Formats: sequence, C-alpha cells, structure tokens
Amino acid sequence: MNEPPFSLHDPIAALATPWGKSAVAVIRISGEGCIGLADRLFIGTKPLRDRPGHTLAHGFLADPASGERVDEVLAAVFRAPHSYTGEDSVELSLHGGLPTIAAALDLLRRNGFRDAAPGEFSLRAFRNGTMDLSAAEAVNEIVNARSDRARALAFSRLSGALHDRIDALKRGLVEVLAGIEAMIDYPDEIYEHASPSRAILADTRAAVDALLATYGAGRLFQEGASVAVAGRANSGKSTLFNLLLKEDRSIVSETPGTTRDFIEGAVTVAGIPIRLFDTAGLRPTRDELEGEGIRRTQIVLDRSDLVVYLVDAVIGLTKDDESVLASIEGRTPVVRLWNKTDIAPAAAPEGFIPFSARTEAGFPNLEAAIRRALLGSFQGEGGAAVIDSLRQKEALERAREALALTDAGLERHTSYDLVAADLREAIDALGSITGEVTSAEILEAVFSKFCVGK
Amino acid sequence: MNEPPFSLHDPIAALATPWGKSAVAVIRISGEGCIGLADRLFIGTKPLRDRPGHTLAHGFLADPASGERVDEVLAAVFRAPHSYTGEDSVELSLHGGLPTIAAALDLLRRNGFRDAAPGEFSLRAFRNGTMDLSAAEAVNEIVNARSDRARALAFSRLSGALHDRIDALKRGLVEVLAGIEAMIDYPDEIYEHASPSRAILADTRAAVDALLATYGAGRLFQEGASVAVAGRANSGKSTLFNLLLKEDRSIVSETPGTTRDFIEGAVTVAGIPIRLFDTAGLRPTRDELEGEGIRRTQIVLDRSDLVVYLVDAVIGLTKDDESVLASIEGRTPVVRLWNKTDIAPAAAPEGFIPFSARTEAGFPNLEAAIRRALLGSFQGEGGAAVIDSLRQKEALERAREALALTDAGLERHTSYDLVAADLREAIDALGSITGEVTSAEILEAVFSKFCVGK
Repeated sequence: MNEPPFSLHDPIAALATPWGKSAVAVIRISGEGCIGLADRLFIGTKPLRDRPGHTLAHGFLADPASGERVDEVLAAVFRAPHSYTGEDSVELSLHGGLPTIAAALDLLRRNGFRDAAPGEFSLRAFRNGTMDLSAAEAVNEIVNARSDRARALAFSRLSGALHDRIDALKRGLVEVLAGIEAMIDYPDEIYEHASPSRAILADTRAAVDALLATYGAGRLFQEGASVAVAGRANSGKSTLFNLLLKEDRSIVSETPGTTRDFIEGAVTVAGIPIRLFDTAGLRPTRDELEGEGIRRTQIVLDRSDLVVYLVDAVIGLTKDDESVLASIEGRTPVVRLWNKTDIAPAAAPEGFIPFSARTEAGFPNLEAAIRRALLGSFQGEGGAAVIDSLRQKEALERAREALALTDAGLERHTSYDLVAADLREAIDALGSITGEVTSAEILEAVFSKFCVGK
Repeated sequence: MNEPPFSLHDPIAALATPWGKSAVAVIRISGEGCIGLADRLFIGTKPLRDRPGHTLAHGFLADPASGERVDEVLAAVFRAPHSYTGEDSVELSLHGGLPTIAAALDLLRRNGFRDAAPGEFSLRAFRNGTMDLSAAEAVNEIVNARSDRARALAFSRLSGALHDRIDALKRGLVEVLAGIEAMIDYPDEIYEHASPSRAILADTRAAVDALLATYGAGRLFQEGASVAVAGRANSGKSTLFNLLLKEDRSIVSETPGTTRDFIEGAVTVAGIPIRLFDTAGLRPTRDELEGEGIRRTQIVLDRSDLVVYLVDAVIGLTKDDESVLASIEGRTPVVRLWNKTDIAPAAAPEGFIPFSARTEAGFPNLEAAIRRALLGSFQGEGGAAVIDSLRQKEALERAREALALTDAGLERHTSYDLVAADLREAIDALGSITGEVTSAEILEAVFSKFCVGK
C-alpha cells in the first residue's frame, strides 16, 4: 500500500465483483463528497445528491470532458452512516464487459477518485464503527471460504457470535476489576470480595481455554486439510477417489488456474474442505525405498494431515501393509479401511473400518472417522463462537496468561495495584479481538489480506 | 435449453456476476410473484413486498426450513414494468464467496425459483417491450466486447443508434407504401406520386447499402483481427512485439485459461482487438520449404487478416524478402515496415513505411496503415449506427433485395399490388432488425448465445 492506510476519508473506487465477463459488474465508491463527485459523471432524471439513501437511480455514466456516454448504469445511493463503510457511498451496476469496467474505472480515476487499497472499504467500516474487527475479519473469511461449513462459521462470526462471547467475558472481568479497585480505595473493607471474583476469574479462564480450543477446528474449516490416500496397488484407491468425488454434494470448486501439484481432487467431507493426494501404490521393498516414487510418497505423507490407508480384504493384511502402517504411525493420523467387504466378507481386524468402495457400504463410518481424526471432539454447530485467525488466537493467549497472573496474585494476596494491572491487561487483550484496542500495524496486517473492493 | 424458452413469466434466478471470489456477488431474480417468494427467505425490518420499487433493503437471507441465516444481503427491489426484464425483480447483493453463492442459489432453487436459461432475463426484457431486439443483442455485445471501441459501438446500438436509423428508414417506406396504396384504391389519380416515392426509395437503398457496409467493421471491432508479424531473422520482430504491447493502453486482457495456441500477444491497435501471431524467421530456401517451420508459418499467414512484414534496413531488401512478399501478395493484405531507420537512415523503397521499433519513429504511420488495411475508409465515430450481427446483415440484405424489386416494379409500371407486396417485404425485413417481426427460432438463436444471468 502506497497510501497511508488509515484515517482517510477521501473518495475511493474499486471493482467489487470479479474481473471477468458477466451480466453485471459492480463498482463501489465511498468517501467524503463522493456522491457529488459521482454526479459529475452521472446523467439521470435527477442528481444523485438529491436522492435519499437506499434508493436506486437509473441513468448513464458519461465523461464530462467529452460528453461520451460510457454505459447505462444503476446507481445505488447510500448515506452516511447507513452504508457498508459508514460513509456516503454509491454502488454502480454496469454491464459486465471488460472494456466497460475498464472505461468506468478510468473515468472515476480521472474525476477525483483514487483506487481503493485492498480491504480499504472494510477498514473504513471498522474505523467508522459499522463493524468490529472480528466481524471485518469474518467478511474476508466468508469471501475466502472453501466449504459451506467454513462459510457458516465465518458468517456466525460476522453476525456477532464471537463478539457477544468476548463482550460477556469482558463484562465479568470489569466487574472483578471494580471490586479490586474498591479494595484499593477502601483497604479497610473486608477481603471477602475476593472469593466471588475468583469464581468469575475461573469461569473466564475456562471460557478462554474453550475458545482457544476452537482455533484448530476454525483453521481446519477455513483452510482445509490434506488427506493422502495410500495402500498397495489394486487396494481400491481410485474407486475410493471416485466415491469421495461423487458423495461431495458441494458445488464449490476452485477458480481455474490454481496450481494443483500432486492434488488429485478437492472434495468436502463432513464440512471440511479436503485436498486429496494420491500416493503411488506403496510397497517399501529394499530397492524401491531408495527410489523416486517412495521419496515422493513420503513427502506427500509428511505433508498430509491424515492418511486414509486401504487394505484389500481379499488378500488380507500383508507384511507390506504392516511395515507401511508402522512407518506412518506416530507421524500422521491414519484411518484404516478394510476394503472390498462386498466380495470378501471376512471380519475386519481390530482398528479397521469394514468398507466397500464399490457398494459404498461403510461410507458414513469413513466420514465420521475422518471428521474425528481431524477435529477430535469439536462440535461447534451453527451460531457457535469459533476463532480461526492467528491474531485472535494470540490475543486469547495473552488474555489467558494475564488471567493466570491475576488469579495467582489474588491467591498470594499480592498488592491490589499489581493484580489490577494484570487484570487490565487481560481486559485489553480481549478488547483487541473486537478491535477496541488496536495498533496501526495490526490493522494493516488484517486488512492488507483482503481483496480490493472489499 | 430444456425449458420452453418463450412466453414464460415464472420465477427465475441466476448469478449475474462471475463465478469467482470477490467482495460482492449479485443474484438476479425475476418473474411473477418473485418478490413474495423472496420474502419467505428474507429477514429485514419490513417485507420486500411492502417496499417501493428502486429501493434497497438491508437484511438476511435465511432458510425458512431450518431458520439458518445464509448471508447478510442487500435486496434491490424493482417493480414491473420498471425493471430490466419489465417484470417484478429483485437483485440480491451477497458476500462474494463461492460457498455463499452456492448456498444462496440452492436456497432459491428449493423455494420456488428455477435456474434462468442463458439470456432469459434479456429475452423477457425484449418480450415485455423494455428493449428492442437490436438493443438486446447490443447488451450481449457489450459483455463480450474485447476493446474499448467495440464497447462504444455496442453501447451506441444499445442506446438506440441503430434502432433510430432503422425507424427513420421504415417511416419513409411506410409513406411510400401509403402513396402506392392510394393509387391502388384510386387508380384514376395521376401517376406523379411515383416520383417522390422513387426519390425516397433511392435514399433508403443508399442508406441500407451504407449500413451493410458497416458490417465488416462492426465484426472487426467486436471479433478482432489476427495479425501475423513476419520477416527474416533479426529483422526486429520481437522489438515490434514489445512496442505494440507497450503502446497498448487498454488494460483489457482475456480471462485466464483461454487457449493461446500460436498467439504471442493480444493488443489493441486503433481500437481493434488484435491477436498477434509470430512467425518463425521466414526464409523460403529449397530445403526449408518442405520443413515443418515453413508449413506452420504458411498456416499462420493464411489464417491472418493482415501480415506486418519487417525488412531490416541495415541489410536492405533481400531476394528472400522479395520471394516471401511475393508469396503473400494477393492472399493476405500486407503492411511493409522498413525497420531500423535509427541506424540505417537510407530512404525506404516505394510501399515501405520508414520505421524504428527501437526509437518508435514511424509508429503513428504503422497504426494508421494497420487501421486502413483492416478497415478501409470506415469511420463510424461515437454514436454511429454500425451492425455487427449476421442476423442484422441478413435482414438488411433481404430489405435491399425487396427494395430493388420495388424500384424495378415502379420503373416498369408493374401492378401496384405486386409493388406494394415487395415494399411490405422490405418494411418487414427492416422491422425484424429491431424485433417487430420475429420467429421463435430467431429469438432462440439470439438469446441462447447470452451468458446466464443476462
């Protein structure tokens, strides 16, 4: 970002929809005086500045220098503070052709608007108090979500699930602080105030721990997991691949052009975006162990969050299978499938899921096992407060540490002044999650990850 | 299209923005009762059905079955006939994440909306009289435009430049027809009515010819041209490539993933989208003539609309150059560049443009020569009526033929009944351009080329 990213209210513009051909393209503009500036480029039945907020005006975007009309547009007028940014804003709906988008952006650039920096609309929204920092982060997470579950968790953060939880914890701590400060001011009062305080502290510490425990799951739903499918040749790996692809009811696919590397497929299992990696039929014989195939397979296994290992039930567990499983054990979690039960109905050994990639028997158990292996006991159904940003995790860790010091201080009857300082640190740490206390560096780090137009 | 494509008013839905991650995604819905249907999925301060047209409502899209909120949305309400389609419509602005778009479309499908067919919104607009057929075609041309000039010409069609021109011609012909019909009804009146009629006919025929003459240019601006750059090794082809890329001020690039084949670059020269093809250093010696390189070069030259041929002025015109130029002559237009005048200031031979790819001397002349070679004397500045669809061309050709017959009939004093029939045919042919007279087949052919959501 070349522009100083903060405390700016100047008029900005950006394409808010993807750069591609489609029926409609939306250009967002925002900032002080932007409606008046837009009026110089807008030909309609009446100027945008005479229109109330939340109305749509039909008209033409035209170059005031040449008079040339660039496109027929719909202009959605928003009045501060009732807009995404909290500022006066306009959203222009254009015909979605690339030269039209380019011409409109160029026209805006030549007429008082500068290109918005990545995340600048959301940054302004945060600065103007239309959303807290955890909600602004959630907006970006919704855009980047790769599964419906990730979307739902991010949306509940946007809707305030995390904000409400943090707020409740902070209110409790502020109450404790008030009690402690009373004792600083009136040191002769009885010390019993401390016991209810310590009960609140204990509850808060448990709640902070619980929130921290959601971080792995939150990351998993947002970032997804790498799952390697391994097994001897003919153990049924490709049938399993096809089954997973078929069972995936999500229509979410990556945009074209992303690197696929060794990836064989991207599916969603139990709401988790999964990148499936194939491993060449794995057979660690002496001469192959030195080979390129095994080296690549080891790389895939090491990079994976989970290995699904297929054993051919017709042949049974071989020495090869046992040695490969032993080599994975302790490095990467494994889900073991006893495949081809449709033609080999013998009972599966301990620790194996009876399965048939062909008839799909055992599929729900496979799904549950993948979920359990990746998520543990995490539930977090709709509306739950779940964190998935490193920033939020670090703030909670700071809060946890400060709360431990506070509690220890009360336990050891330390000076109330010192206890109060620790407690204030904990309150600040929680406040930083919702953005009450933030530095310019943190804001830049958060918003520079956004796409332009958001 | 599985759906019967015409005379439908049922509720339809489609993503109107590209399928990709971005700040905003827009889903269009339209059709009878669509606002009431949308209300079942919308949670806001008041129902959409109680809101006037051209207003925006903030709220949430929620699944009425589960109560789960899918996204926070802005709903733009449009009331018939004041909408794109001429029907009641809503445009939903969502967060532009793929799972969010998928979840919203799925929700609409499960609640009374079907997926719109390609072009169905525009088809409905045409059927409901909110735009004529040439304007509807222009909408699609704007979306698919690949240069700013193509955009401008399509936009002037959308703005009615073609419609107004055709209308004026038709009014003239209707006047002539009235005169002829008067003579059918009152055969004893004097025949002099015929002379002003024939003057109008002559003007109309000239105007139809002029419009037909714009077809090539219209296609060129919309579809672009293939230009091969040829010349001996070291004649400066790659320097010219880089110069053309640098001079191209359009920021319009193709979306990723399109096949590039032999294409070396896509630029815009004089408003014309140009695909540049490289040819391997061309040198038709006996043994190379049979070679793969020359065969490929010949294919490129044959597929090109124009060849830009570079001669190294330091070396001068060689026998090789002459024989290659002779082989192209008569097959493909050629622009001849006398390159490297910065280091070889000798005068260029007849027919060559003095040029320096390194210093850019002569660039405006190159640009003008490319324009002249591809466009001839076509001007067609902003606001001009230009056709670029085969359908429009064929209708004009029908009109031209019928007008010739009409004129010949008057000349030969044929029965007025027959003359009137020819004239009506001409009027109908013109009317079909703006869609006054159209068959279901023509409509299907026009609208099925559109993208979904348009």
